[in-house]
Amino acid sequence: MITAQDKSSRARAGELRLGHGVVQTPDFMPVGTNATVKSLDPEELKALGAQIILANTYHLYLRPGHERVQRFGGLHEFMQWDRPILTDSGGFQVVSLGPLMRINEEGAKFSSHLDGSMHLFTPERSIEVQQALGPDIAVAFDQPVMPEGSTDREVRRAMDRTHRWAVRSLRAHSRPGQALFGIAQGGINPELRAESATYIRSLPFDGINLGGLAGDETPEQRNTAIDATVTALEGDLRVRYLMGLGSPVDLLEAVLRGVDLFDSVLPARVARNGQAWVTGGRLNLRNARHLDEQEPVDAQCDCSTCRRFSRAYLAHLFRAEELLAYRLLTIHNLRHMSAFMGEVRRAIASGTLAAELPRLRAAAGGPGTPRLGAGDEPGAVPERGAMQPRYAAAGRLRGAQQKRAVASEDKE
Amino acid sequence: MITAQDKSSRARAGELRLGHGVVQTPDFMPVGTNATVKSLDPEELKALGAQIILANTYHLYLRPGHERVQRFGGLHEFMQWDRPILTDSGGFQVVSLGPLMRINEEGAKFSSHLDGSMHLFTPERSIEVQQALGPDIAVAFDQPVMPEGSTDREVRRAMDRTHRWAVRSLRAHSRPGQALFGIAQGGINPELRAESATYIRSLPFDGINLGGLAGDETPEQRNTAIDATVTALEGDLRVRYLMGLGSPVDLLEAVLRGVDLFDSVLPARVARNGQAWVTGGRLNLRNARHLDEQEPVDAQCDCSTCRRFSRAYLAHLFRAEELLAYRLLTIHNLRHMSAFMGEVRRAIASGTLAAELPRLRAAAGGPGTPRLGAGDEPGAVPERGAMQPRYAAAGRLRGAQQKRAVASEDKE
Repeated sequence: MITAQDKSSRARAGELRLGHGVVQTPDFMPVGTNATVKSLDPEELKALGAQIILANTYHLYLRPGHERVQRFGGLHEFMQWDRPILTDSGGFQVVSLGPLMRINEEGAKFSSHLDGSMHLFTPERSIEVQQALGPDIAVAFDQPVMPEGSTDREVRRAMDRTHRWAVRSLRAHSRPGQALFGIAQGGINPELRAESATYIRSLPFDGINLGGLAGDETPEQRNTAIDATVTALEGDLRVRYLMGLGSPVDLLEAVLRGVDLFDSVLPARVARNGQAWVTGGRLNLRNARHLDEQEPVDAQCDCSTCRRFSRAYLAHLFRAEELLAYRLLTIHNLRHMSAFMGEVRRAIASGTLAAELPRLRAAAGGPGTPRLGAGDEPGAVPERGAMQPRYAAAGRLRGAQQKRAVASEDKE
Repeated sequence: MITAQDKSSRARAGELRLGHGVVQTPDFMPVGTNATVKSLDPEELKALGAQIILANTYHLYLRPGHERVQRFGGLHEFMQWDRPILTDSGGFQVVSLGPLMRINEEGAKFSSHLDGSMHLFTPERSIEVQQALGPDIAVAFDQPVMPEGSTDREVRRAMDRTHRWAVRSLRAHSRPGQALFGIAQGGINPELRAESATYIRSLPFDGINLGGLAGDETPEQRNTAIDATVTALEGDLRVRYLMGLGSPVDLLEAVLRGVDLFDSVLPARVARNGQAWVTGGRLNLRNARHLDEQEPVDAQCDCSTCRRFSRAYLAHLFRAEELLAYRLLTIHNLRHMSAFMGEVRRAIASGTLAAELPRLRAAAGGPGTPRLGAGDEPGAVPERGAMQPRYAAAGRLRGAQQKRAVASEDKE
């Protein structure tokens, strides 16, 4: 449900009413791949403002197994998280397996990256697994492709299949109270994006995902794809979720283009590497100068890390490779994202987004942000180097690259 | 200050009044080597009942540096822990360096295990570092030896030197409000233990440590050494602290022999390996059967882990090598230790220790405890395999063994 529409852009604010609570949008979902947002417990997630988290169907299907989770009363009970959960469909992870995977009209047959055992994921199977896991939102099974490295023909083929699988996913879905989102694909080709969005829009999904982005495309290619998709969704009040996007500057631009929901491992992953996201840029806490700084990571942040600890203490913990370092900085980066999205929501709701945009862009680490100091970088340039390609074209990438993508996901 | 003396044993209850609070004894101190108890934050430590923690002088001297900690207002401020802290003297870590260390009457010259830089620790330097770190309790610099692998002559020589260093530590100590504990050595030779205890007792320390134990000695050798020490301390009301002992069954036996205070990395280290200490024994959460158990780790435990999460969830987290696993089980094991010591204190104070001893021994995992299940072991046998030798005789051990001991400490 849309509660406010910005007049200067396509940005909108809304409410997503789910079994375990209401999610105010736009918002960012922390990723809890293995039914845990790495190093954090549910209380910390609530305290930092997480309204909803994402869990990975592929990982939980393989370990500990969806039936086991179901026996324990579902994901919420299993991980003791009583706010909303979204599960992805497993499509991305399966397709990323590359040579370990064979795809046809029925579905994707793959060999587990954990023990080599063989599995078949079909739209029906993905929905069955997600119904057993019991999130508030399930997602239709799709066939993503790497946007930049794929031909239009390959993108169209995967898109058409994704459309057929969308119908099968809808038919297979029967869990009362569980929302089902469909995925619009189409690579970076605006015509295909529009065609896919138009088709997925015609189906009775509860929300519409923008798939196949946040991968190897440029920001310009991504923006073009978003614009084509959102134009085709004009007037549609369902939530729009761009999978895999994770930096404040990227999220702000996507919100302005009409996207409502995001997820990414990025804020947590870079935190474990010592990178703090602060108002207007970022800091690398492995940098020696932070060892002598008594101020918090971000004086403007209200997270439990910034309210208690100095940069010096965190810098020390990172040098000593202490587990607490990863936890404290993950709390901060996720709070930073949550607070930033809260700012954006407030600006949309109060009709001041246009006026606040320069400030919000600067806070996100937008162009023109001064460098924060030696070794630190403003957040202006989206952090591509820190991410593994999120989508791999089936059977087209070299083995090493595919393995890396899978290993990277598995770590999350 | 002693508040209760058990009539059936040498066990006693007391209060240790310190600048940052009162410590009820007997008690166990969690170890925060690098100014952090691995994976836990101060609130969790308080919630699990930690009255006092230990931090390592050697590690903090090298990284981040005691002067840096001092500039930040001392350890309490640096790590945001407002209850008491004890620092060790660095003697053990320095002597464990073996070939990287040369010891003479002045002190111990050693090469940092971090970067190879050369350093000299003397009694005066150790006290200076501890005064800068600012714990509630500092400890005199000593020369420990490996009890089992040393000749009486070597033990006597190190003991005599420890006595001279005790006097130098006392003379060097000037920080108001900071207690200073002395270390009685003497290996496993009862005469030397008695001689050392008698000498250290004669000095104006605020507490008396039993050094050179919790290493490679047998429980019988340790008990003999404790008995000889405590006999020589008869009537002395100062707190007695046995450094390095860490399992419930070991602690109970030492308390019965008149020891008041303990520290060890053991409960936290085995937790990170998946081993849970429960009433009457222990569980290995890496064991497959726990994946299907809905009950908490220990139904009798009131820790935040047992109040929220199932064994199944923890077993899953351990298999997925999730950081949250280490944290949740560390909370449990430390709470288990804290609650157990609380039980022992209560029994001493109420004069029911003798009557409760069979139950307490069974709870600690005493002899006769039934096996808990396939792959799990009762805690009856002190966990020697899980520990690296805690003391290494200077220049007598092979390099690999010494390196292992140091590496092991560094990990903590």
